[in-house]
Amino acid sequence: MGACIGGESIAMTGMTLGLHRAVQQRPQSIATIFGARKKTWSEVGDRIARFAGILRRAGVGRDDRVAILAFNSDIYFEFYLAVPWAGAAVVPLNHRWTVTELAYGINDSGSRLLLVDDAFCRHAGELQAACSGLRGCIYIGDAEPPDGMPDLRDLLDDTPGIDEDRRAGSDLFGIFYTSGTTAEPKGVMLSHLNVWSSALSMLAEMRFDADDIYLHCAPMFHLADGVNGFAALLSSATHAFIKTFEPGHLIDVIERDRVTVTILVPTMIGALLANPRIRSADLSCLRALQYGAAPMSDDLLRRTIETLPAVDIYQGFGQTELAPVISVLGPEDHVLDGPRAHRSRSAGQASFCVQVKIADQNGNRMARREVGEIWVRGPNVMLGYINKPDETARVLVDGWIRTGDAAYMDGDGYIYIVDRIKDMVITGGENVASIEVENVISAHPSVAMCAVIGVPDEKWGEKVHAVVVPQPGAELSEAEIIAHCKERMAGFKCPRSADIRSQPLPLSGSGKILKRELRESYPDRDHHRHSVSPTKTYTKAP
Amino acid sequence: MGACIGGESIAMTGMTLGLHRAVQQRPQSIATIFGARKKTWSEVGDRIARFAGILRRAGVGRDDRVAILAFNSDIYFEFYLAVPWAGAAVVPLNHRWTVTELAYGINDSGSRLLLVDDAFCRHAGELQAACSGLRGCIYIGDAEPPDGMPDLRDLLDDTPGIDEDRRAGSDLFGIFYTSGTTAEPKGVMLSHLNVWSSALSMLAEMRFDADDIYLHCAPMFHLADGVNGFAALLSSATHAFIKTFEPGHLIDVIERDRVTVTILVPTMIGALLANPRIRSADLSCLRALQYGAAPMSDDLLRRTIETLPAVDIYQGFGQTELAPVISVLGPEDHVLDGPRAHRSRSAGQASFCVQVKIADQNGNRMARREVGEIWVRGPNVMLGYINKPDETARVLVDGWIRTGDAAYMDGDGYIYIVDRIKDMVITGGENVASIEVENVISAHPSVAMCAVIGVPDEKWGEKVHAVVVPQPGAELSEAEIIAHCKERMAGFKCPRSADIRSQPLPLSGSGKILKRELRESYPDRDHHRHSVSPTKTYTKAP
Repeated sequence: MGACIGGESIAMTGMTLGLHRAVQQRPQSIATIFGARKKTWSEVGDRIARFAGILRRAGVGRDDRVAILAFNSDIYFEFYLAVPWAGAAVVPLNHRWTVTELAYGINDSGSRLLLVDDAFCRHAGELQAACSGLRGCIYIGDAEPPDGMPDLRDLLDDTPGIDEDRRAGSDLFGIFYTSGTTAEPKGVMLSHLNVWSSALSMLAEMRFDADDIYLHCAPMFHLADGVNGFAALLSSATHAFIKTFEPGHLIDVIERDRVTVTILVPTMIGALLANPRIRSADLSCLRALQYGAAPMSDDLLRRTIETLPAVDIYQGFGQTELAPVISVLGPEDHVLDGPRAHRSRSAGQASFCVQVKIADQNGNRMARREVGEIWVRGPNVMLGYINKPDETARVLVDGWIRTGDAAYMDGDGYIYIVDRIKDMVITGGENVASIEVENVISAHPSVAMCAVIGVPDEKWGEKVHAVVVPQPGAELSEAEIIAHCKERMAGFKCPRSADIRSQPLPLSGSGKILKRELRESYPDRDHHRHSVSPTKTYTKAP
Repeated sequence: MGACIGGESIAMTGMTLGLHRAVQQRPQSIATIFGARKKTWSEVGDRIARFAGILRRAGVGRDDRVAILAFNSDIYFEFYLAVPWAGAAVVPLNHRWTVTELAYGINDSGSRLLLVDDAFCRHAGELQAACSGLRGCIYIGDAEPPDGMPDLRDLLDDTPGIDEDRRAGSDLFGIFYTSGTTAEPKGVMLSHLNVWSSALSMLAEMRFDADDIYLHCAPMFHLADGVNGFAALLSSATHAFIKTFEPGHLIDVIERDRVTVTILVPTMIGALLANPRIRSADLSCLRALQYGAAPMSDDLLRRTIETLPAVDIYQGFGQTELAPVISVLGPEDHVLDGPRAHRSRSAGQASFCVQVKIADQNGNRMARREVGEIWVRGPNVMLGYINKPDETARVLVDGWIRTGDAAYMDGDGYIYIVDRIKDMVITGGENVASIEVENVISAHPSVAMCAVIGVPDEKWGEKVHAVVVPQPGAELSEAEIIAHCKERMAGFKCPRSADIRSQPLPLSGSGKILKRELRESYPDRDHHRHSVSPTKTYTKAP
C-alpha cells in the first residue's frame, strides 16, 4: 500500500491543541477569571509550560499519572493542560470521597504526585502514608501550605517552561473514576482522542465560540463539566470558575463575569430558581444552560423556562466510559406544550461523534419503541477500566460500550431512558414510576428537593414513600404532602408515608440523588427489585 | 497499565457514522435531491447496503480500492458511503484528466473496479485495456450503458444489502490525487479519522444543522466540496447536486431546491454574479457561501457582499494532504471597511482540528509577521502519498505537514499567504504583486476573468503582462486595460501588454487559474523566478 508514515499518535489530536490555538489567536484575551484573578491566554500558555516543568522536576515522566484533589479553580484548569504538556495523564479525584476511597484511587491509578488545595491539604499526610507510590504533594491553594509542602506559586516563579512532550490520539489522557455507590470505583482510562472527539461534538452541539464565557460550576473532577470546559477550550472561549456550588454566589458570578454558558444538575437548577436574587439579578448574558446527570421534572423545566425565557436549554446525557457524550437534547425540544412536548422527557438524539443502538443481550438491534440496553460506539469509547480486565470485557463488546441503561428509541431517534422504570415502586401489583410522583411533589411551592422510593410493606409488598426537603424557611408536613398528591393523582400512586428532612438528600458526585442510599435506610430493600430491570445493570457513571 | 481493550480501529469513527445517525434520526426526511429525483435517508440507507453488496459481488474485498469517474450526482454521494460500507477505499478521479492520467491514477491506486457515468463511459474500454488490475466497470449513468457494462440500477434491484464491514480510525478511507500540473500526480492516502475530523471541524465552523440543504456544485472528486459534504452528512442535512457548474443552472437549483449552503471557487462566484438572473431569482434560502482554492479579489468580494447581503461568506483554506482543512475565515472578517477590512485578504485562523505554525526550513517557529512556511498538524494529517515514500518523507516531518505555502501570521493568528509574493513580477528591480494588479483589472466592468504574470523582457528583466477574458458580449482592448490601470496605480505596476482572450483561462481541478500554464506560453520563463520564494515549493494540492 505504499508508504504510510503518519504515525497514529503523532498525527492525531492532543488535548493541548485548544491551548495552542487560543494562545495563537487570542493572546491578549482573557483566558481565566477566578474571583478577582484574571489571566490572558498568553499568560496561561506561559504558566502551563512552567507548570509542566515543575511536574518534570518532581519526577513526573511520560505516561506517569498526576492526581488532583481540589475544588474548582483556574489552577484546576491549568492542571488539565500542564499534565499532558509534561507527557503525563490526569487523575481528577472525587472530592466527596472518604480518605480510604481517595487512597484507593491514588493507588489504583498509580499516581506519582498529588495536587491539593486549601480544602483538602489536611488529607495529604494520611494519603502519603497510605499510598506508597505517591512521591509527593504540591499545594495549589491560595492561603498557606502545610509545613514542608511546596507551593505552586513559588515553584512557578523558580521554574522555566519546558517543551511540550506531546501526547495525542490513543495516548492516555486521564483516568476518571466512576462513583459507584456500592461496588469498588472503576478507573476509566480515556485517551486524548476520546476526550477531544467528545469535546468537538459538544462544541458543535452548544455552538460555542470565542466570545463565550463558560462557567465551571459543577465539579471539575467530573466530565459533565469537563467536556463543556474542553469544548470551550477548543473554541478559545473564556473560563470562569466558582469553587463550589452555592446558588446566591452562582447568581453573583454569572452577573459579574458575564457568563454565557454553564452546566448544572437539576438539583442545582432547582436551588438556583428558589433563590430570590434570580429575579433581580441581570442574567441577560446567559445564552445557554446545559443540565446533565438526570432529567428535569416537568415542573422544574416549566419554572426554568419561565424564569429564564431567553436561555437555550440543553440536556447532555452520557457516562464516563464515553468521555462522556452519548446524546444531547436541544432547546427546540425543551418545550412545554405542543406536539414536541413529550420530547423534553427524552435524553435527546445521538450526538455527532457517536452511533447508538438499542440492543438485546446479544447486541442485536431492537425495533423502534422496544426497550433494550443502550449500546454506543464512536471515537469516544474508553480504552478500558484500569486494572479491571473482566469488568472492561463485560461492558466493551466489539467496540461498543454497553451502557447498562435501559431505554427505547422513537421513530426520530430520540432516546427515552427507562432507568425510571427500573426506578419504580411496585405496590399492590401496580407499577408506580417514581418520577411521576416526584413531578407532582416538586410542584408544591414549599418543596426544595424530593425523592420517591419504594419501601418494604407487609400489605402492599412495597409502598410509595417520599423523602422531602422543604424550601428554606418553609413549613411542611407529611400530611400536607400526601394531601397535595391525592388532589393530583390516582390514590395508589400517592405516597403512603413521607419523611420531611432539613438536610439535603445524598447526592452523587454529579448531583444525582443517591436513591440507593435512601433505600438502604429501610430494611429488606432488595427482596424484589431485580425483576423489573429489562437488562443487566452495571454500576453507572455518575 | 491494566486492560486496554478498545482497539483503535474499532473504537474510532468511520465515515458511515453520519449515515447511521441520519437514518436513525431523520428516516423520512429528504437525503438527496438530484433534479426531480429525491430520496429519503431511509431509502439511501437501504441503497447503500445493496450498493455495497454489488461491490462485494464484483470482487471488492476489505481495503480494496474502487475508483469513480463521473460528474456530480446523488450516485456519487452514495459511492462515498457504499465503498466504506463494503470495507473498501474510494478513489475519486479528476474528470478533467486525460485518459493517460486516468490510467495512471487507476494503476497507481490499485483500483479494482471503476464506476463511470454517461459523460465518461466512453473511456471505459481504453482504461480497462490500460489498467491490468481493473477487474471491471459499472455504469452509474441515467441513459443506456455501453454494451455489456452492468448497470447500477439493475444491480440494485437484484442485490440484497450486506452488513457493514466497518472501517474507521486509521483505516484507509480513500486516495485523493493532487493535480500537480507538471509533476506526476500524487495519491494522498486519507484515513477515516483524517476526513471525519476535518468534517466535524467544518461542521462547527459553518454551523451546519439538520435543516440545511447543502449543494454539491464544485466537483465531488475534490475535497473542497468533499469536506463540506461530509460536514453536511454528519449533521443529517439534505444534499442537492448539480452535475457541472453553469451559472444560470446554479441559480435555478438554489432557488428550486431551497439550498442553504454551498461552496464555490472565486471564478464561479464571478460568473454567478455576472449572470443577470442573480438579481431576479429568490435566493433568500442561501445562508452561507464558502469559497476556496484562491482568495477573492477586493472587487469580487465587494460585489458578492452587495449582491448577496444576507449571505454569510466563509473562506476555506486547505490542501488535500490535510483532508483538507487548515484554516477558515469567517463572515465577521469578510468586511470591506473598518479596522478588520484587511483580514479579508488573509486565509483566516487555524481551524478547530489543527495546529498551525509558520516555520523556517528546520521547523523552528518564526516570530509573528515573519514570512516562513506553513506547517500543520492534527488528526487530519494524511497517512502518506501512495507509492511515494520519498515525497511523503519530504512533506511529513515529525507529524507535521509542510504545506509548501509561504505565509506570515499576525498577532491574532490570521494567516496571510504570500504565495502571492511568490506570484510576483520583478520588473526593473521593483516587486509587483500580481494580485494587486488583478484586483484593479477585475474592477473593470467589462472584465470576466484576468490573470497577471511576468513575462521575459530584455529591458526590464520581466514585464507585467495581463491576460484578460471579457464579460460575454463586452468589447475590450489592450489599450483600454492599460489605460484603466494607469488611472488607478503606479506606472511600474501597470501591465505593459495585455492579451484579450475569448476562451476561459486554464483552471486547475479546483478552479484556480493555472498561471504556470499561462507562463509556459512565453519563452525563457524560468530564468529568474526562484529567488523570490522564501521556502521550497512543493507541488500543491489543487
